Amino acid sequence: MSPARVTIAEIAACAGVSVPTVSKVLNGRPDVSRQTRRRIEALLAEHDYIRSGTRTRRRAGVIDLVFTELTPWSLEIIRGAEQAARAGRSRIVVEVVAGDAERDRWLDRLASGQTQGLILVLTELSAAHRQRLAELHLPVVIVDPVGHPDPDSRIPSVGAANWAGGLMATEHLIQLGHRRIGKITGPAALLCSQARLDGYRAALERAGIPVDPRLIRSGDFHYRSALLAAGAMLRLPDRPTAIFAGSDEQALGVYEAARRQGLRVPEELSVVGFDDVSPAEWASPPLTTVRQPLAEMAALATRTLLSLADGSHPVNHRLELATELVVRDSTAPPQE
Amino acid sequence: MSPARVTIAEIAACAGVSVPTVSKVLNGRPDVSRQTRRRIEALLAEHDYIRSGTRTRRRAGVIDLVFTELTPWSLEIIRGAEQAARAGRSRIVVEVVAGDAERDRWLDRLASGQTQGLILVLTELSAAHRQRLAELHLPVVIVDPVGHPDPDSRIPSVGAANWAGGLMATEHLIQLGHRRIGKITGPAALLCSQARLDGYRAALERAGIPVDPRLIRSGDFHYRSALLAAGAMLRLPDRPTAIFAGSDEQALGVYEAARRQGLRVPEELSVVGFDDVSPAEWASPPLTTVRQPLAEMAALATRTLLSLADGSHPVNHRLELATELVVRDSTAPPQE
Repeated sequence: MSPARVTIAEIAACAGVSVPTVSKVLNGRPDVSRQTRRRIEALLAEHDYIRSGTRTRRRAGVIDLVFTELTPWSLEIIRGAEQAARAGRSRIVVEVVAGDAERDRWLDRLASGQTQGLILVLTELSAAHRQRLAELHLPVVIVDPVGHPDPDSRIPSVGAANWAGGLMATEHLIQLGHRRIGKITGPAALLCSQARLDGYRAALERAGIPVDPRLIRSGDFHYRSALLAAGAMLRLPDRPTAIFAGSDEQALGVYEAARRQGLRVPEELSVVGFDDVSPAEWASPPLTTVRQPLAEMAALATRTLLSLADGSHPVNHRLELATELVVRDSTAPPQE
Repeated sequence: MSPARVTIAEIAACAGVSVPTVSKVLNGRPDVSRQTRRRIEALLAEHDYIRSGTRTRRRAGVIDLVFTELTPWSLEIIRGAEQAARAGRSRIVVEVVAGDAERDRWLDRLASGQTQGLILVLTELSAAHRQRLAELHLPVVIVDPVGHPDPDSRIPSVGAANWAGGLMATEHLIQLGHRRIGKITGPAALLCSQARLDGYRAALERAGIPVDPRLIRSGDFHYRSALLAAGAMLRLPDRPTAIFAGSDEQALGVYEAARRQGLRVPEELSVVGFDDVSPAEWASPPLTTVRQPLAEMAALATRTLLSLADGSHPVNHRLELATELVVRDSTAPPQE
C-alpha cells in the first residue's frame, strides 16, 4: 500500500529550492512566494509526499465546514457537524466561500492554515481549484454533491435519498385523490433536483396519471422564483390542486402565490415541501414536507472526515441517508 | 499600567508544582489533573500572569462563537461574525453549549484549546463558570446579554435598541388605527423582553390608550407558546385587532392561531414581529417586523474581540445598534 516515501531533500532538489523552503511550505509559513509554494505543493502532490507531521494539523483540532451561502438549510448542517465534531474532540469552523476570487483567497488561507480537513457543502469547484485542493493533501468530505459526480474523484460524499423522497411526496398527494399535481424543481444542473423530479414522474406513471409538462416549472430552490412559478401554474384554466415544491423555502413561495389568488391551503391547494427545516413547522398551516436528514448527513460527513484524518479509509465513497415524509396540515383531499 | 510580571517559577513555587507542570497548563497540555490545573489557573489569574506566548493563541486564528441553541437567529449572527472574522484574518468556530455539565466540559476544552477569544451569544453563566472563564484570561465579548447586566463585569457587549424597536412597532399599529393591540413578550428574565414591552407601553401611553393587562401575555420567543397565547387573546370577547410579537418565530405562531380561528392576516388581524430573520420575508403574508441588525451586531462584536486580542481596550463597554421597522404585508388598518 505504502510506496517508498520521498524525502523533503528530494522535493527541495526537484524544486530547486532549499530544504528550509520546503519545510516552510509544509508548515504553512507565509514567507514563501505564492509561485514557489505552488511549485512545491505540486511536487509534494506528484510524489505523494506524506507529512510525518500530521501532528501539527491534528493539534489544531478544527474542521472547516465550507458553504457557498448560509440558509436555514445550512443551520441544520452546522448543528449536525458541531455535535459530531464535539463528540470527536474537534471543533467546526464555518466558512462562506462564494465566487472564484474568494476561492483563491480561501485556498491560500488553507495552505497556510491549520485544519484537520474540509467538509464542502454544495461547493462546486473548478478543475484548477480541485487540483490545488488535491495538492494540499487534506482530507475532504462532501455533503450532497451537485452537478455530475466526478468519476475520477475519490472524495467521499454523503447525500440523501432524493428520488425516494420525490416518489413519497407525490404518492402521498395521489393517495389523497389529487390528479393534477404541479412540480417546481430546484436548479436543473443539480443532480438532487433531477432525482426528485424523476421520483415525481415515477409516482405519476405508476398511478397511470399522464405527466403534463405545463405543470413542471423550474426554480432555484428559493422563495421568489417559486412565487412566480406557482402564480403562473395557478392561473392555468385547469390549475393544479396540489404543488410539490423542491424545497421548503419554495413551498413558502407557493403559499404566498396561493394567498395572492385568494386560494386557501390546504382546502383549495395542497402543498408539499422538501427539507424539513424549521420554517416548515412554523408555516401557517404547518407544512407537509419530505424530511432530509441534514443534521445526520453532516454528522456522518464529520465522523467520516475525522476517521480520514486518523488515516482510515471510508468503507464506501457514497453514502445516502433515507428521506421521510412528514405529514402536517398543508395537504388534504382536493375539493370536488 | 503594567505591574511587575510574575514568573512561571514563582507560580510553580506558589502552587507547589514543578515549572514544567505550569508550562503544561499554559500550553494547554491535557496531562495535568483537573484539580492541579485549576489551582494553577487560579494562581495565574490572581497574580495577573500575562502569557508571553500570546503568539500561541494568535497563531490558531480562531474565535469561538458560543450559542446555547441554534435558531434562524443564530444564522444571522454566524453570517456577520464569519464575514468580520474573514476580514480580520481569523475564523469562526461555532460551538453549542447547553446545560451546566456541557459548560464544564466546554471550559475544560477552552483551557486546553487554542482560541483568540470568545463571543458569547445569549449565554448566561453561573458565578463559578464566570470565575473560571475570567481565570483563562481570554478576551470575551457578549452579543445581546440577557438578565441583569453584571455591574462588576467589564465584559464588552453589543446589543440592539430594543426599547426603540418596541416603540416603533406599536406606533406603526396605532397610526394604522388600532386601539386594541396585544403583546406577546419574550422570557420575562431577559432585559430585551422588558425593553420591548416598555416600548410598547410607552407608545400606548403617548397615544392616550390605556394598557389592558389581558392583552399582554408572556412567551419564550418560540412558536408554540405564541400560538397558545395568541389563541387565548383572540378568543376574548373584545379581541385585539393587532398583535405585536416578541420575535418573528412568535409572530408565525400568531399567524397559525389566527388561521385556526378563521381570521385572515392582515384583514382581520395585523401582526408585527421582531428580528427580521429570513422566515419573516417568506411568511404568507410577508411579515412586518422590527429589524434587529443581528449580522452587524455579530460583526461589531467580532471586530471588538479582535482588537481586544491585539491588546486594545474598547472605547465603550456597551454598544447598541439601531433597530428599524420593516413594513411588509401583515399590517393594515383594522376592519370597522
